Amino acid sequence: MTGARPVSPAVSAGEFARTYEACKNWGRWGPDDEKGALNLITPERVAAAARLVRSGRRVSCSWPLDTQAGPDNPKPVLHHMTIMQDIHIGDAGDLRFTGDFIGIEFHGDAHSHLDALCHMAYKGLMYNGVPVDEAVTSLGASRQTMDVARDGLVGRGVLIDIPRLRGMAWVEPSDFVYADEIEAAEQAQGTRLAEGDILFLRTGHARKRLEEGPWEAAVAKAGLHTSVMPLLHERGVAAIGWDGDGETVPSQCEGVAYPIHAIGICAMGLYYADSLSFEDLATACEEERRWDFFCVIAPLRIEKGTGSPVNPIAIF
Amino acid sequence: MTGARPVSPAVSAGEFARTYEACKNWGRWGPDDEKGALNLITPERVAAAARLVRSGRRVSCSWPLDTQAGPDNPKPVLHHMTIMQDIHIGDAGDLRFTGDFIGIEFHGDAHSHLDALCHMAYKGLMYNGVPVDEAVTSLGASRQTMDVARDGLVGRGVLIDIPRLRGMAWVEPSDFVYADEIEAAEQAQGTRLAEGDILFLRTGHARKRLEEGPWEAAVAKAGLHTSVMPLLHERGVAAIGWDGDGETVPSQCEGVAYPIHAIGICAMGLYYADSLSFEDLATACEEERRWDFFCVIAPLRIEKGTGSPVNPIAIF
Amino acid sequence: MTGARPVSPAVSAGEFARTYEACKNWGRWGPDDEKGALNLITPERVAAAARLVRSGRRVSCSWPLDTQAGPDNPKPVLHHMTIMQDIHIGDAGDLRFTGDFIGIEFHGDAHSHLDALCHMAYKGLMYNGVPVDEAVTSLGASRQTMDVARDGLVGRGVLIDIPRLRGMAWVEPSDFVYADEIEAAEQAQGTRLAEGDILFLRTGHARKRLEEGPWEAAVAKAGLHTSVMPLLHERGVAAIGWDGDGETVPSQCEGVAYPIHAIGICAMGLYYADSLSFEDLATACEEERRWDFFCVIAPLRIEKGTGSPVNPIAIF
Amino acid sequence: MTGARPVSPAVSAGEFARTYEACKNWGRWGPDDEKGALNLITPERVAAAARLVRSGRRVSCSWPLDTQAGPDNPKPVLHHMTIMQDIHIGDAGDLRFTGDFIGIEFHGDAHSHLDALCHMAYKGLMYNGVPVDEAVTSLGASRQTMDVARDGLVGRGVLIDIPRLRGMAWVEPSDFVYADEIEAAEQAQGTRLAEGDILFLRTGHARKRLEEGPWEAAVAKAGLHTSVMPLLHERGVAAIGWDGDGETVPSQCEGVAYPIHAIGICAMGLYYADSLSFEDLATACEEERRWDFFCVIAPLRIEKGTGSPVNPIAIF
Repeated sequence: MTGARPVSPAVSAGEFARTYEACKNWGRWGPDDEKGALNLITPERVAAAARLVRSGRRVSCSWPLDTQAGPDNPKPVLHHMTIMQDIHIGDAGDLRFTGDFIGIEFHGDAHSHLDALCHMAYKGLMYNGVPVDEAVTSLGASRQTMDVARDGLVGRGVLIDIPRLRGMAWVEPSDFVYADEIEAAEQAQGTRLAEGDILFLRTGHARKRLEEGPWEAAVAKAGLHTSVMPLLHERGVAAIGWDGDGETVPSQCEGVAYPIHAIGICAMGLYYADSLSFEDLATACEEERRWDFFCVIAPLRIEKGTGSPVNPIAIF
Repeated sequence: MTGARPVSPAVSAGEFARTYEACKNWGRWGPDDEKGALNLITPERVAAAARLVRSGRRVSCSWPLDTQAGPDNPKPVLHHMTIMQDIHIGDAGDLRFTGDFIGIEFHGDAHSHLDALCHMAYKGLMYNGVPVDEAVTSLGASRQTMDVARDGLVGRGVLIDIPRLRGMAWVEPSDFVYADEIEAAEQAQGTRLAEGDILFLRTGHARKRLEEGPWEAAVAKAGLHTSVMPLLHERGVAAIGWDGDGETVPSQCEGVAYPIHAIGICAMGLYYADSLSFEDLATACEEERRWDFFCVIAPLRIEKGTGSPVNPIAIF
Repeated sequence: MTGARPVSPAVSAGEFARTYEACKNWGRWGPDDEKGALNLITPERVAAAARLVRSGRRVSCSWPLDTQAGPDNPKPVLHHMTIMQDIHIGDAGDLRFTGDFIGIEFHGDAHSHLDALCHMAYKGLMYNGVPVDEAVTSLGASRQTMDVARDGLVGRGVLIDIPRLRGMAWVEPSDFVYADEIEAAEQAQGTRLAEGDILFLRTGHARKRLEEGPWEAAVAKAGLHTSVMPLLHERGVAAIGWDGDGETVPSQCEGVAYPIHAIGICAMGLYYADSLSFEDLATACEEERRWDFFCVIAPLRIEKGTGSPVNPIAIF
Repeated sequence: MTGARPVSPAVSAGEFARTYEACKNWGRWGPDDEKGALNLITPERVAAAARLVRSGRRVSCSWPLDTQAGPDNPKPVLHHMTIMQDIHIGDAGDLRFTGDFIGIEFHGDAHSHLDALCHMAYKGLMYNGVPVDEAVTSLGASRQTMDVARDGLVGRGVLIDIPRLRGMAWVEPSDFVYADEIEAAEQAQGTRLAEGDILFLRTGHARKRLEEGPWEAAVAKAGLHTSVMPLLHERGVAAIGWDGDGETVPSQCEGVAYPIHAIGICAMGLYYADSLSFEDLATACEEERRWDFFCVIAPLRIEKGTGSPVNPIAIF
């Protein structure tokens, strides 16, 4: 699939609607399904992915939890020591414990996290046509919650490295990644996205942030063009992680501020892992001379949650 | 190793001191080492462990985050919805997001979590002889922090199922598990603990909690007898998870309330994953007819942290 | 007003509806009013109340913030030290600061707090007929918020001490206080409730809690019978504080679990200060031989809030 | 007292030490005293202060709780809705409650708060010579905690308005206020500071913040010169509130970054209310043609706390 790159990044409401419908997985795995595209990761594919482990090298794809407020971090993580070595546990053996508390509003542009499918609704409906009003109350979510993925996202990970393809340090904020680039990167890397894969899409967001410091990512971010989504749908990608959140900001999509989330989460039932860092992973891929690996993302079991902070691990 | 079971569970101060010294890994991986027994998980062993994946079955070993205060949960997890579907994102496409916040003081008996090595000091010293006063301040930890394990605990997991061995639903709180039982379980299960393994030790704590409800675990808990630790040291266990926290409470060890933590964390440099649930895992082991599997524990990147909430994943 | 005590505590739906309508202050202070019965505290009445200060004695009417989970405290307050004396501020003068964090979900039975008028809606409408859906979103409240009372509840406080009247240590949970008892207490104390007063209604809840320990207050609590509300309406009470929350639990009101909140907050526009402690105040009143005093309740400025933790101060 | 203004704002270590000693109140109210200068607010003075209430006008001196991160707000307040009107309480009466959570690390430059005496130690000692290591642990403070002031700071408040004196909108950050200005303001306002007064010192910090937006107050702030402290000591000021925190930043005091805190809190035992806003109060003083008023500051009862968020109320 994928033909020519669109003349302009602008996407009309009609085009968006057609893409949304074309990518819909509603009903594909039954009317009550809550796992969405994770269904594509069959046990056989998990087992096959494990056979990718050869060197045993492991790489974290998460930022450290960021406790410093900044232009892309309006909700800094709380980290408090709650007990320290000044407290001697009452015995002759002189034991001392240290302990701590974290508080985290994990969505947004600063904290590596996984989106549950209930994180988003388009026209009032979540994936598989579930009305968001039936799924989420002020006491928490009850359908398509984070806990659906309690056993983890486990499978073949594939890094698609766009800055490498372009020969640049990063994709500039507000720029788009197109379908032909995904395919060109596949070719350049010798790795083709296949059904059940967990795609890691590198724009170099993290590198820019490390080198130039944080910026107001909510208003300027590099991501996918909506025309990429049919390619990913066709290939059967099961989940996606990115160093941004997949969206190009500002959106060029008529009337839809977050088209990649709408199509991916609501239409396709894709789990998105946002605000990751692939800097160490990109290095490892170069050194290992391959861009696929075994991948494990283990969300916390937040039963009524819309997502979770995560530390995705790539294993070579 | 391991000889006869001790006549009484009581451990004198002298015995404890001898065991502590006998298990010490200080200096073993260099004076500045912070990884402790994780050093035993070599890349080769990671790769070998991945070859254990055959069926592709995955199992979570974590409790859901517990937001209800109770006798073993004095610090319930905070879970707050921070944005809901009543907020329409300002565009014609009618996007709506839901988001949430979690707050968690993860140590203790209610929340599945991993201990960093800086979680504990015995006689003022952490693993490898680091003075706790040099490692931890009220602003957070700087040495042997959770982030040392940022790339995850990845390797061969082995479930040692004591209730299965005993033919009982669970080990009663205040009872001890002895070294001969570990060895008997190995035999019964056909699985021998080897160097670099991640031991999952099931006492049935979680089953008792599920069936009879929570109790004040801080004062009554089943765990290991200190005489088990030399066996685990000899075998080269690299990390341990349990459904309790390894300790029998009340302690029978003279002057030391938490001898298993002291020996394991401080002397051996062992990472402990506490308050896990092995109920699903035990079922899976029975059904798969094997008690070893590929294991991934991916802590959040809490740079100054003493631990992390985790959701360990076993993969068959 | 007030005639005979009702034959039974049971209140039919019809009786409730009549009482609700009879007590309605909607429109009384204009269609856009958000201050409700606080309008009754005119500046002149503030000045008059200040003249009650004679001895200069001051009394707190708040519990300490309760960080211990318990049967009436499912959401214990978080209190974390965030900086301590181990951190030397970088100068020769050896300055050291200590600092802390509190986290509090203040409604409920354990934390002394003030309810904003937006805390409650009856049949979808808040005080003055404002639809709750126009006033509160998941991002916070915008109408009748806590910040309406930013300048404090300041005026004449009157303690009505029911256990004193009854000659008992406390009113038993599930028991009702009736209108004739309010009047009898007025007489016994020589203090008549007047327009603009802040009523402090003592049931002895705090004394029972101090003497016998906390109980599950959500299911057993002493409070007012709904027939008291017309008396308070007639007298022009401007706000109420209590050691419970005004409600008798279980409710005897057909179809309405919290009739006192519905009538007081929604119909009358009364600010309620819940879960106070009047034990010190009761002692002070006895010693000062009077049951009225200057009263200041200063809520935190939570602009989008539905209430605030408070420490009401009585000044004699 | 007070002679000529110092030639330069620079304060040598020796001068600081002399001022510190000269202002010391240690032992003045007994060796175990924890109330410090609050002892100067006798009941008689409370009663006298209440007689200042004439018009009944009330003014809040607090900022709203600030949930937005910014250059002076690195720890934004958490405000989460925890229950909303989507939850119908289970009865025919259709009751709905809204509730919320706040989390606040209240010290710093953004949140109106009161310092407990245990907030600070100079050379290891708090007020009255108490070693900070005996008073504060990682589990909280036990001496000179916020709860010492549980009955509130109640007395005569006096606003000293420096921008009014200078005929400027505000005192520029890094500028000092001197003793002769305090006295000149007293004269200009016709109000003399007397023993037991609560001083409110206006630099116009809040006005600058409102007009020009927040700045990095931690590195540029207007406050008192250390030479003012003996004047305040002589007059017997009992507590101080300010729109900054009393400190000029950067400090011109040799080796002491926060000399006003050291002298006031540690030597004198003064409670400081920091980061207040006097903009409404200044207007009220002009309109009422007087700069003294009845003042109530009611801290939350944080038993082990080093301070509290507060909403000080001035009553005319």
